[in-house]
Amino acid sequence: MLANVALIVQKYGGTSVGSPERIKNVARRIAKFQSKGHHLVVVVSAMSGETNRLIALAKEIQVHPDPRELDVMVSTGEQISVALLSMALMGLGIKARSYTGAQVRILTDSAHTKARILKIDEDRLRADLDAGHVVVVAGFQGVDEAGSITTLGRGGSDTTAVALAAALKADECQIYTDVDGVYTTDPRIVPEARRLKTITFEEMLEMASLGSKVLQIRSVEFAGKYKVRLRVLSSFEEEGEGTLITFEEDNDMEQAIISGIAFNRDEAKITVLGVPDRPGIAYQILGPVADANIDVDMIIQNVGHDGLTDFSFTVPRNEFIRTVDILKSQVQPHIGARDVIGGDRIAKVSIVGVGMRSHVGIASRMFRTLAEEGINIQMISTSEIKISVVVDEKYMELAVRVLHKAFDLNQAS
Amino acid sequence: MLANVALIVQKYGGTSVGSPERIKNVARRIAKFQSKGHHLVVVVSAMSGETNRLIALAKEIQVHPDPRELDVMVSTGEQISVALLSMALMGLGIKARSYTGAQVRILTDSAHTKARILKIDEDRLRADLDAGHVVVVAGFQGVDEAGSITTLGRGGSDTTAVALAAALKADECQIYTDVDGVYTTDPRIVPEARRLKTITFEEMLEMASLGSKVLQIRSVEFAGKYKVRLRVLSSFEEEGEGTLITFEEDNDMEQAIISGIAFNRDEAKITVLGVPDRPGIAYQILGPVADANIDVDMIIQNVGHDGLTDFSFTVPRNEFIRTVDILKSQVQPHIGARDVIGGDRIAKVSIVGVGMRSHVGIASRMFRTLAEEGINIQMISTSEIKISVVVDEKYMELAVRVLHKAFDLNQAS
Repeated sequence: MLANVALIVQKYGGTSVGSPERIKNVARRIAKFQSKGHHLVVVVSAMSGETNRLIALAKEIQVHPDPRELDVMVSTGEQISVALLSMALMGLGIKARSYTGAQVRILTDSAHTKARILKIDEDRLRADLDAGHVVVVAGFQGVDEAGSITTLGRGGSDTTAVALAAALKADECQIYTDVDGVYTTDPRIVPEARRLKTITFEEMLEMASLGSKVLQIRSVEFAGKYKVRLRVLSSFEEEGEGTLITFEEDNDMEQAIISGIAFNRDEAKITVLGVPDRPGIAYQILGPVADANIDVDMIIQNVGHDGLTDFSFTVPRNEFIRTVDILKSQVQPHIGARDVIGGDRIAKVSIVGVGMRSHVGIASRMFRTLAEEGINIQMISTSEIKISVVVDEKYMELAVRVLHKAFDLNQAS
Repeated sequence: MLANVALIVQKYGGTSVGSPERIKNVARRIAKFQSKGHHLVVVVSAMSGETNRLIALAKEIQVHPDPRELDVMVSTGEQISVALLSMALMGLGIKARSYTGAQVRILTDSAHTKARILKIDEDRLRADLDAGHVVVVAGFQGVDEAGSITTLGRGGSDTTAVALAAALKADECQIYTDVDGVYTTDPRIVPEARRLKTITFEEMLEMASLGSKVLQIRSVEFAGKYKVRLRVLSSFEEEGEGTLITFEEDNDMEQAIISGIAFNRDEAKITVLGVPDRPGIAYQILGPVADANIDVDMIIQNVGHDGLTDFSFTVPRNEFIRTVDILKSQVQPHIGARDVIGGDRIAKVSIVGVGMRSHVGIASRMFRTLAEEGINIQMISTSEIKISVVVDEKYMELAVRVLHKAFDLNQAS
């Protein structure tokens, strides 16, 4: 529960501020919190569609827009949102003041379009809060040491909110979004999916990295690092407590072993066949891929025989062709591998839960469930609290549904 | 003539950067100057229509948008333009770097939506210029002592350009616009209107204040104060030397006595009838008008008789009703005037020229020319280098045309 007078950081995404009418709704919601005596810092994204519009405009000028200049452009989206929300608050008689990332001084490194927050000056915000203002901060953006505008990359507004909550030692950071919390899985695929009242920080991190779009992974990491109390709520519902991301495991005996099921069809798998089984071979294969700035996700190497092994990994689906090209031209002739094969019609399905630590047989239950439906598992990767499998893309929805049922995640009817 | 290697400040207005294609054209023009070895600082406005779009959006939220927040929003227009133009320059292989007003540090007072420039830090710009960059600066905006974004008011980009030229001691400030220079009058009204090769600073100031839209009056004042060599050129023509604003009168014997004819139909006239002819009466009438923040332009008071006089002045047309209301409610009963009358179907026509100083009979020639066409003069006001008359709005075009001919301004055929 929140204290009687709490400092709350709220974040509203692009859909929540997508029109003047919606901005006014957000203002009314903020007014309610303020009327209870809470101090509020509000982080907003660009109005939905605006960032894409700006990027498209930039690309009309330069096919690959200069990153520094792209940040100058794209950051205007949030700048407009903070001004509009501040106006809407003033329209309700509430004192409000907008800040761009540079004005707060959210100091970042200089990695344009994907900058990282280094430091936040919270003095001016605190002075405004003490003077009874609602402080409205542009998400997604900062400024580097040289004074150039930077952006944090897609979803960066969540990170801004969490970073501000950490800097201000806020009582809670509330992420308002178009869903009313974190679900056991995507309700569009499994209608019986259930909203979780709580989820542990570790589980949320796995869910985010596995493809759940509710929270941006960096914001979850940030929250974990600085122990920020984080809550996901719907910006379209008046009531509701959303999902709280906790730092302790729930001791409730009734808690399910598995908290959620994530899935992702944005990957492709690649196998290098007939690789000499000797030290350094993984680096020889993945080095050129990393040099090309391609993110590698799952990596599988099985026990070899006759001095040869097969080496598999997954990459983002839109990098599939490029990765195969790199391997065929730079790696295969060099290490004397037999062939490079792969496919981009795959999906990754993962079960996540801290309960795995204290329960055995979770993996075998997962594999049996899939086998019973005739779903072939192509790759397997595990961590302490998650098991991921790669299956043919066409079985993805089915896999998610049967696993959801098998692990008792279906809503109590 | 410009030096072989000159520092030039160029300003491109909203129409000149109104589309990606036009932005690329501007970049090509800049490239030409750079290829000659010149150093360039380029000031740009928001893409045409953008500022109005943003203001309309703000008004959907707040009928009278908060000035600080409106500046936060509106300033994004130029921010987008500088990024796009920098990208376009880089696309041509030219090193370029954009700056917002706050990034340059164009320090202004805190009068949001109509701020005045106090100081410009030119160190960073100079370092970029020395490193061979084209520096692209957002016009129309600055930042106050507290770090809030300010805007300079409509047409403020001209002022930004002139102020930068002054701070950097540029060799020339070139204002690119949709006309190719300053004309003897608006060619849409008088097809024989002639482009002036030069015009004196004083004349330009009168022309700007009298309604010629070519340059914003504050930018001309600024240029006069800091002796900035200012030139108006077309951004749509490849060649052409435009109009140079000079500080010395042309000694050419052939120079016309009158340089140009300005006109303005944005005013209304008001007369307070039967005013007691005693000291302090002008203040009693105009004090309440000034208190209501209404700009008064021409003021006429004739010799009275029987202790009474009539007092006339002009105000912006959109303030006509409000001014009459103030006079009828606050002034007339107080001073015991007989009545308040007026009309908003008037136009002001002015002839401007430094030649007036050394020639007599200019006023009478003007009045005779109008009389010959049956145009009644309702008010007259003069300064050292201009004569303005108020006439019925319906005669405005005719008055401009006949005066243009009478003072030998028509183009040599």
